Amino acid sequence: MHILITGAAGMLGAKLARSLVTDPPEGLSRLTLLDVAAPQPPVGAPVPIVASTLDVADPSAVAARIAKRPDVVFHLAAVVSGEAEADFDKGYAVNFDGTRALFDSIRALPDYRPRVVFASSIAVFGAPFPETIPEEFHLTPLTSYGTQKAMGELMLADYTRRGFLDGIGLRLPTICVRPGRPNKAASGFFSNIIREPLAGKEAVLPVEEDVRHWFASPRAAVGFLRHALAMDLEAIGPRRNLTLPGLSATVGEQIEALRRAAGDEAVARIRREPDPVIAGIVAGWATRFDAGRAEGLGFRAERTFDEIVAAHVEDELGGTVGARG
Amino acid sequence: MHILITGAAGMLGAKLARSLVTDPPEGLSRLTLLDVAAPQPPVGAPVPIVASTLDVADPSAVAARIAKRPDVVFHLAAVVSGEAEADFDKGYAVNFDGTRALFDSIRALPDYRPRVVFASSIAVFGAPFPETIPEEFHLTPLTSYGTQKAMGELMLADYTRRGFLDGIGLRLPTICVRPGRPNKAASGFFSNIIREPLAGKEAVLPVEEDVRHWFASPRAAVGFLRHALAMDLEAIGPRRNLTLPGLSATVGEQIEALRRAAGDEAVARIRREPDPVIAGIVAGWATRFDAGRAEGLGFRAERTFDEIVAAHVEDELGGTVGARG
Repeated sequence: MHILITGAAGMLGAKLARSLVTDPPEGLSRLTLLDVAAPQPPVGAPVPIVASTLDVADPSAVAARIAKRPDVVFHLAAVVSGEAEADFDKGYAVNFDGTRALFDSIRALPDYRPRVVFASSIAVFGAPFPETIPEEFHLTPLTSYGTQKAMGELMLADYTRRGFLDGIGLRLPTICVRPGRPNKAASGFFSNIIREPLAGKEAVLPVEEDVRHWFASPRAAVGFLRHALAMDLEAIGPRRNLTLPGLSATVGEQIEALRRAAGDEAVARIRREPDPVIAGIVAGWATRFDAGRAEGLGFRAERTFDEIVAAHVEDELGGTVGARG
Repeated sequence: MHILITGAAGMLGAKLARSLVTDPPEGLSRLTLLDVAAPQPPVGAPVPIVASTLDVADPSAVAARIAKRPDVVFHLAAVVSGEAEADFDKGYAVNFDGTRALFDSIRALPDYRPRVVFASSIAVFGAPFPETIPEEFHLTPLTSYGTQKAMGELMLADYTRRGFLDGIGLRLPTICVRPGRPNKAASGFFSNIIREPLAGKEAVLPVEEDVRHWFASPRAAVGFLRHALAMDLEAIGPRRNLTLPGLSATVGEQIEALRRAAGDEAVARIRREPDPVIAGIVAGWATRFDAGRAEGLGFRAERTFDEIVAAHVEDELGGTVGARG
C-alpha cells in the first residue's frame, strides 16, 4: 500500500507521517510526503519514503505525482483561513483548484480508484447556528476558506459517486492544543492559553471566559485520519463528508483544566487583553455539533478538556509539566 | 439599466426576455440576450436589444460581454441534468466553469458590482429527505448537475460577501407545465401529462399516481426572476441562496386538475406505462420544502395545481382548451 500525503510538512501532516512510520498500517509499502517546501521525512521508516516538493496549484505537478498511482491520498494541503481571506486568488488556486487538479488527475487514469481522505473543516458552516448544529445543517460558510472547503466536499462526493475515486471528507474540529509557536490565526488563543503557560510563558486571552468552541487534540486528529484509512468507506453511503466528533468547551473550562494539570501559577500566566475584533470573529464560530454519524462509524475524540491537556503534555512535553509551581 | 441574460434562448430565458420587453422595469435602457445559439429577440422592444451567441464555457468570450458592464446579469445558461450526467466534462465546463468565468470577469472590473441572479435548482438537495425539507437542510446533491449548481451557489455567496457582485441564487422548483415538445428529461412526464392531453394528444405516465413533487409554473418562474430584479438584496443577509416557494402536488392531484380543466376525455389520453427506471430516479427527488424565507422576501408561487393548469392555458393556449370533449 502506497500512501501519499499532501501538506505533509504541516502540523497534522507531519504527525500523520510519523504515526504511519512508528505504527505502520498493515501492507504499507511506500510513503510519499509532499508539501510546498519538502517535508522532513520521519526517521526509522520500515518502508521507502519520498519526501519532496509539490505545489498543488500546479496541475501538471499534481498529475506527475498521481501518475505513481498511490493507493491512498491524504489531501491535507491548504492555505489557511486568514491567508485565503487576505489573498483571494491564492486561496482559490490552492484550496479549490489544487483539490480539483488532484481529483481530475486521479480521474484521468484508467483502472484507478484510490482512497482519498480530504481534510475539510467546520469552517464550511456559518452563523447563525442552533445551539447544537445538526448533522443535516446546511453549508453557508462565511469565509473564502470555508467556501473552498465546501466546494471540495461537493466535488469529493460527486467524484466518488461517479466511481473516479473512493472519497471521505473529514470536517475537523479546531485542533487544540496546537504545538509550536503562537500564530496569527484568530483561533490561536485557544491553544496559546494552554501551551504557553504549560511552558512557563505568558499567553494573551482576547475573549471572555464564556466563549465556547469545538475542539479535538492533534492526537485525536491523527486518529481520525488513521480511522479514515482503515475503515470500510462503503458504510458511509453517498454523503461522504462527515462532521467529526469533538469536545465542546468554554474558555473557562479550558482554564480550569489547565489549573488541574499545572496549578494556579500556570493559570496566572494568562493575561486578559479583550480584543473586540477577535471576539467578533469568534462569535460567528460554531460551538457544538451533533457528530453522531461519524461516531457511529467509529470516529472518536476526547470527552474532557483534561484529556486534551494530557495529550499535549504526553505528546509534546515528554509527559511532565516542567513549569508546575 | 442594462440587463444581460445568459441562456436567453432557453424556455425560461426567452419568457423572461419577453416579459422585460412587454412590461419593462423602470429605467430599462438596454437588453443583451445571449445563448450558445443566438436567441430570437422579442419584437416591439422599447429599448435596444443585442441578441447574440455566447458559450459560457469560453472565459474570454464571457469577459468580452461583461466588459459592457451590464447592471444586472441573469445567469440562466446551463447544461441540463441529463446531459451533465452523460458528459461529465461538459457539465463542469458549462455549469461550473462558465459560472466561475462570469463571476471572475465581473470581479476583474474595477468599480463594478452588478446584481447577479443565478438560476439554481432543487437538484442541490439529495435524498433521503424529511417529509418537508427545512430551510437549513444540507446540500448533498446526487447528480453532477446538482453538484455544479451547489458549487455555484457557494461561490455566489462568497463573491457577494467579498463585494465583487451583488448576488442572489434561486433554487427553482420543477417547472410545470413546460411548453414545447416532450423532452427526454426524467421529469418530463410531469408536464407531458398535462400539456399533451390539453392539446388533444396522448401522454405517457411512467410512475404511480401517489408520486409527489415540487412545482411552479413558467409564469411563476418569470415572476421569481423579476422579483429578484426588483427587490432589495440587502434584506436577504449573507445566505444569498433561497429555496423558492412551490406547490407540492401528487401526480393524482395533477390529473384531477386536468380533469377539472378539460374533462374525462383529456384524462383518458394519459397512458400508464410504468417505467421502473424513471420511478427509481423520481423516488430520490424532493417532495416538499419549507420556503418561508423566500416567501417572507416576497417570492410567490401557485397554491393549487388548477392555477398551474390555468397559467398554461392562458399563456400557451390563448386561454381556451381547444380539445375539450
